[in-house]
Amino acid sequence: MREAVHLGRVPPGAALPPSRVLADTLGVSRWVVTEAYGQLVAEGFLESRTGSGTRVPLTARTDPRADPRADPRNDTAVRGEAEPYPLAGGPGSLRDRTDARATRAGTRATPSGTGGPPAPRARYDLGPGVPDLRHVPRAAWARALREALAEAPDADLAAPDPTGHPATRAALADYLARARHVRAGGGDVVVTHGADDAMRRVAAALHRAGHRALLVEDPSWSRLRETAAAAGLTPVPVPVDGDGIDVEALLAAAGRTGARAVLVTPAHQFPTGAALSPVRREALVRWARDVDGLVVEDDYDAEFRYDRRPVAAMQGLAPDRVVLLGSLSKTLSPAFGLGWAVLPPGWRDTVVDRGGAGPSTLDQLALARFVTSGAYERHLRAARGRFRRRREALVEALGKALPGTVVTGIAAGMHAVVELPGGVEATDVVRDAALREVNVAAIERYRATAAGRDGGRDRLVVGYGNLADARVEEAVVRLAAAVQVAGRPR
Amino acid sequence: MREAVHLGRVPPGAALPPSRVLADTLGVSRWVVTEAYGQLVAEGFLESRTGSGTRVPLTARTDPRADPRADPRNDTAVRGEAEPYPLAGGPGSLRDRTDARATRAGTRATPSGTGGPPAPRARYDLGPGVPDLRHVPRAAWARALREALAEAPDADLAAPDPTGHPATRAALADYLARARHVRAGGGDVVVTHGADDAMRRVAAALHRAGHRALLVEDPSWSRLRETAAAAGLTPVPVPVDGDGIDVEALLAAAGRTGARAVLVTPAHQFPTGAALSPVRREALVRWARDVDGLVVEDDYDAEFRYDRRPVAAMQGLAPDRVVLLGSLSKTLSPAFGLGWAVLPPGWRDTVVDRGGAGPSTLDQLALARFVTSGAYERHLRAARGRFRRRREALVEALGKALPGTVVTGIAAGMHAVVELPGGVEATDVVRDAALREVNVAAIERYRATAAGRDGGRDRLVVGYGNLADARVEEAVVRLAAAVQVAGRPR
Repeated sequence: MREAVHLGRVPPGAALPPSRVLADTLGVSRWVVTEAYGQLVAEGFLESRTGSGTRVPLTARTDPRADPRADPRNDTAVRGEAEPYPLAGGPGSLRDRTDARATRAGTRATPSGTGGPPAPRARYDLGPGVPDLRHVPRAAWARALREALAEAPDADLAAPDPTGHPATRAALADYLARARHVRAGGGDVVVTHGADDAMRRVAAALHRAGHRALLVEDPSWSRLRETAAAAGLTPVPVPVDGDGIDVEALLAAAGRTGARAVLVTPAHQFPTGAALSPVRREALVRWARDVDGLVVEDDYDAEFRYDRRPVAAMQGLAPDRVVLLGSLSKTLSPAFGLGWAVLPPGWRDTVVDRGGAGPSTLDQLALARFVTSGAYERHLRAARGRFRRRREALVEALGKALPGTVVTGIAAGMHAVVELPGGVEATDVVRDAALREVNVAAIERYRATAAGRDGGRDRLVVGYGNLADARVEEAVVRLAAAVQVAGRPR
Repeated sequence: MREAVHLGRVPPGAALPPSRVLADTLGVSRWVVTEAYGQLVAEGFLESRTGSGTRVPLTARTDPRADPRADPRNDTAVRGEAEPYPLAGGPGSLRDRTDARATRAGTRATPSGTGGPPAPRARYDLGPGVPDLRHVPRAAWARALREALAEAPDADLAAPDPTGHPATRAALADYLARARHVRAGGGDVVVTHGADDAMRRVAAALHRAGHRALLVEDPSWSRLRETAAAAGLTPVPVPVDGDGIDVEALLAAAGRTGARAVLVTPAHQFPTGAALSPVRREALVRWARDVDGLVVEDDYDAEFRYDRRPVAAMQGLAPDRVVLLGSLSKTLSPAFGLGWAVLPPGWRDTVVDRGGAGPSTLDQLALARFVTSGAYERHLRAARGRFRRRREALVEALGKALPGTVVTGIAAGMHAVVELPGGVEATDVVRDAALREVNVAAIERYRATAAGRDGGRDRLVVGYGNLADARVEEAVVRLAAAVQVAGRPR
């Protein structure tokens, strides 16, 4: 169905058969069809309205901004940056307001805190990108490791396959097909030390293939940009808005610089939290095909999506043009040092070539068992529940402590973007928060350009991945105190 | 004492106090003194003759070739290549004939074999550098992993220290000080994915520091040369002889190319098996200091030394100028993906910088436990015994199957160098051996230059690390058959 919409075989506006009818036709259960419809609605390929069934949106293959009513995700029309959607409610009303959509949290005032000692070690770490280290599935991983070590044939202990162990590559391909709609076999997968290591290899391969620039989202995760730069690819910043990377700006930047590769975070843009819209996904793929280019999809945070089903990976749209990067760093722990790249034909060998050694074979075999036994998905489900509850506690606490605050980017992942009141500067808040043992970053920190500031209000990136539930409220109270102090006239 | 000899405070020819006297003077047990004397004799800093006590060799600080009688290791005077030392004996007589010293094995004739099917998969793998995969200490490693996983504090599961976990670095520094006379603290150690990964980082650091060439032994292990070349360092080959790398040739090559860094295997030159002589070690260090250069010591095979105590690492002579590389690949298995570099001050940060992620923290914590619990050294002792017995079986089998064969490089490591009869070409033997399901390589395969051939007899590198004891004899019989066929007039 995704392909049919994509290729225009189902015209915009067309009604789909009721799920019961399609289930009978295909000889599958009705549950399968409703799940599939739900997934495609979540991705914006279909739309569903109570009483009028499921249809192809009028704007599915054109710019969604043309008709804001046609795409329910467009209720906060976008102009360069995600525009806040004011909500009066508590966490319940978040459920259908997703991606870079916004929440205006509660209305109760909060006392301002007092300054702490200078630069203490942060007790309240609101940095993004760290998973819940209290809930690393140690026992399940120990079991997988023990079994791997006991059962691996001697031959598996010889020099490892530089692409990764075949069992691990197959297990990852299966998992990614199931969970992320990735289209790949084990032969397309390379096991790496993490997403950063994967980026390092892909960047080196791009450089060997003649690339000298890489289009990157602005703002974005600094590390991967730096890794690309170290490999000789000059990062070319492209702005993002509420639908992800701005493709028109990308085309202009590509034309100006000759860049033919782009690094994107389609599932949950870092740090804004936007999901890349279907129209833009297709435009990106079209561009990559036109220029014989490559899209590098950092599938960051994809597994933690709270309000609707996960958005499928872009890779499934164009396995010939998209490299997908993933890792255990955000789902288990960065201490495991395991990640992967799914590569288009022709790229695998050059990414392996000179890439150095892969991870320990034993760890890879443990990963294969961990994934195929279902332990990984069980862990993800449990983690999703924990993060969802913590997110709601965070939003509620923000509503109490900083009434009227606009919170965005919380449909997925482990951080929120918090807009500061007018006139309050993020750098002041960050500095004062540090004195209160709170580590928090301004969104500007993730800018790829010095240009940066867009004239809007300052924003903070507030991570809650490794924040103990019992500390959420106190962390927010301290943060709010920092905001109050920073907002006082000087 | 090593330093005293090194600095000339104890003159050449000087007699040392009897062990009993020195033990009393120092207030230590006599055992400590005899161990220390034995170690220094093994390294060539002292010499010991029955009835005449222990003394500083006359040639200890000059070229040992000047007086071949003064250095017992020089009984097979060296001219560009290790010259064979003919022995009549069985394995017992090997005990004191070490390094690139040679053995002329037994005299019994052997039947020649018949050709097998074309290019079958090698049942008899005589490739070098693979440890005994049947004896990987799985249970001990599993225990270390289980304890690490159970006891690591949550904070250890956050983003890892890019230099390695402090506990692991400290455990490695302790072990290397004890076993290899390395002078370093945990702060000088970087944990890597193996020696190749360490080389990759060191080569990148050298390149950033302006180096464009790396002096390498010829022949030598191809992989590390290629890794250096991939980082932009042109390998400059320098010949080796029975005392290791030819320092005069090195000085000439350095002068010609401006190279200020060298990669050496002092403990057991790969593939010839020579130990780098004390005089040359000092000359290398002197050169490195003169040119503000760097010696990269691949401490390959150092743990498996059979006939005398291990030769100390060069690093201990000059921690300011020597990088030591080591790994578990040859002692446990390459599947563990764990290695290390010990770095002079000032090099650590640049080697870490941009070097990508280190190994899994859990694996590192397991390694720390494995080393500090003594399990690693217990494993090494057991492995040493196995390899020694297998080496003797190999030499005995070669003596039976290829009477008169000269075997060198067997004082340490997991391979022997076998000289072919005059007129027999190694390439013919390798080809015919493959037909007999025997994988074996000509020493020429490890040449850094096309120039290669030195006019002497052809030689094979015969690995026995992963050869089952029960297969040694059959492997040698098949190899001998290949030699016989290759030697027939055509």
